[in-house]
Amino acid sequence: MAVVVDLEGRALGRRPSLDAINELIGEDLKAVNALILERMQSPVTLIPQLAGHIIAAGGKRLRPMLTLASARLCGYGGERHIGLAACVEFIHTATLLHDDVVDQSDLRRGLDTANALWGNKPSVLVGDFLFSRAFQLMVDDGSLEVLRILSNASAVIAEGEVRQLVTSNDLGTVEEDYLEVIRSKTAALFAAACRIGAVVADRPQSEAEALGRYGRSLGIAFQLVDDVLDYSAREIELGKSVGDDFREGKITLPVILAHERAGETERSFWKRCVENLEQGDEDLEQAISLIDGHGVMEDCFARARRYADEARRALHVFPATPERDALEEVVDFCVDRAY
Amino acid sequence: MAVVVDLEGRALGRRPSLDAINELIGEDLKAVNALILERMQSPVTLIPQLAGHIIAAGGKRLRPMLTLASARLCGYGGERHIGLAACVEFIHTATLLHDDVVDQSDLRRGLDTANALWGNKPSVLVGDFLFSRAFQLMVDDGSLEVLRILSNASAVIAEGEVRQLVTSNDLGTVEEDYLEVIRSKTAALFAAACRIGAVVADRPQSEAEALGRYGRSLGIAFQLVDDVLDYSAREIELGKSVGDDFREGKITLPVILAHERAGETERSFWKRCVENLEQGDEDLEQAISLIDGHGVMEDCFARARRYADEARRALHVFPATPERDALEEVVDFCVDRAY
Repeated sequence: MAVVVDLEGRALGRRPSLDAINELIGEDLKAVNALILERMQSPVTLIPQLAGHIIAAGGKRLRPMLTLASARLCGYGGERHIGLAACVEFIHTATLLHDDVVDQSDLRRGLDTANALWGNKPSVLVGDFLFSRAFQLMVDDGSLEVLRILSNASAVIAEGEVRQLVTSNDLGTVEEDYLEVIRSKTAALFAAACRIGAVVADRPQSEAEALGRYGRSLGIAFQLVDDVLDYSAREIELGKSVGDDFREGKITLPVILAHERAGETERSFWKRCVENLEQGDEDLEQAISLIDGHGVMEDCFARARRYADEARRALHVFPATPERDALEEVVDFCVDRAY
Repeated sequence: MAVVVDLEGRALGRRPSLDAINELIGEDLKAVNALILERMQSPVTLIPQLAGHIIAAGGKRLRPMLTLASARLCGYGGERHIGLAACVEFIHTATLLHDDVVDQSDLRRGLDTANALWGNKPSVLVGDFLFSRAFQLMVDDGSLEVLRILSNASAVIAEGEVRQLVTSNDLGTVEEDYLEVIRSKTAALFAAACRIGAVVADRPQSEAEALGRYGRSLGIAFQLVDDVLDYSAREIELGKSVGDDFREGKITLPVILAHERAGETERSFWKRCVENLEQGDEDLEQAISLIDGHGVMEDCFARARRYADEARRALHVFPATPERDALEEVVDFCVDRAY
């Protein structure tokens, strides 16, 4: 049963969802999940244990969905997109594992002896394993063009992660630095995931580039919204966890804008909390209140909507099909999370 | 000036060295080093800083040497081996960085605030960057066969590292477990480094396999010796640092054999030191004395010599050339370190 996404539907208040894209590529996604399960196996049982844990927790499979739907949008009828979508998810999972490598401060809090002994190593090494598996899958696929796209994306992601580390706890970080971080650490893989859809379908460069632009803009919008939600009072009401970025002193757009618009007293607050990481129980609430007070949330959403518009526009080189509609609704879904 | 390696030379007590191989591929190795320097660059300056530090400290460049000399042994006259040797070194360096991710216990000892804030992340992320760079270099080279060999090796290395982690602090580890660890974590990259020399030279599968066998046996011998030296009284006399494996409770062959041959009292000693990691100042000395007492060192060397013989024998499919002699001397060099 196809779900029709139309203006009327939206006007009636139906919230954008991933239903349409799931309807189109749901069977492919099942094949991707099966392949992921198969290829994360190893005689070293800790590997599938740890990988299985994070892959199961991984949720929506947004990135492999993009590969699958992009290939379909390009009229691809084969099976190669399954393996490549699994690659994309493996690279994403490896990044997550390495991103989660706990800092010293976290390590001190209530870890039992086994963890104390092993430290961060299993996460790092299983991440390396999944990363290698991704490249093995690409080699099996045999396209040097895909290998080029995903090895470039991987290098850019690592650069973005290091850039984020360097800007951490530094209130001198400006909006352009932040955008460069999220373009690299998040949008590069979204762009690559979409682009390879055109490559397997053997479509002209212009379509690969359009899908790349779509993925990049979508990725930026997605990360902008993600970073805003970490300071959202509404998320707290919904019982979701917020404040992770604040506690780490990660410099995201809400902090940059709130700090820019702050007077001297507020600047000392930000300095104490995110530069010196001296935080008390009430400080997150105070941060959220300062961010709201300066109208920062709305400005962040406005930027997210601008990138969302760019993403939708990039799809205009393709004829209107259910696939294009579904990819447009992914954009709406990613931005709608904010409301 | 060519260095002639002959029996007489050895009989006169000249110790095996890397001089002969350096003589043959020294110019190529300079090109590799220049390429490494060029390809570790990034606008994110922390990346070349950190990568430069570990690459400069890296020393002998044994693995890229093997790629260069193997290619020459196969009569290769082009330039592709330069880029691929750099790949091999990038993969090795990424592995080192991830291997060095400090455990919680180490993190507690005297790190300043910046490190406390950043934790292990820079090492992990710069490792990821170098790993991605390695794949970018392979894509530039364009051989799917090389990509297959090195992505397979990378997955096996990660498996070996996890396997090592799992055997850590477990005195139930037997010699075959240990061999499986070093075959994966060390010998797989030695084998791959040699094998791709035959691939760029477009030599038949039998020669690629012979070089793979050479590299694998050499890698096992190399790691066996490395692990033995960590318990060597002679190394202490030479002012070298020993005991790292002991302090971490890593289960290497000296511990396995000493524990196998131990009575009840000695077994409690090993249990306390490497399983429970309860170690006092005198314990390393005691461990070395127990290992020596049971003739373990000589048995470990005997095994290393057996793999060294296998490595040399694998080269017999090639005609006797200065390249073959030089690769044989690499074997002697790796095992001779033990004496």
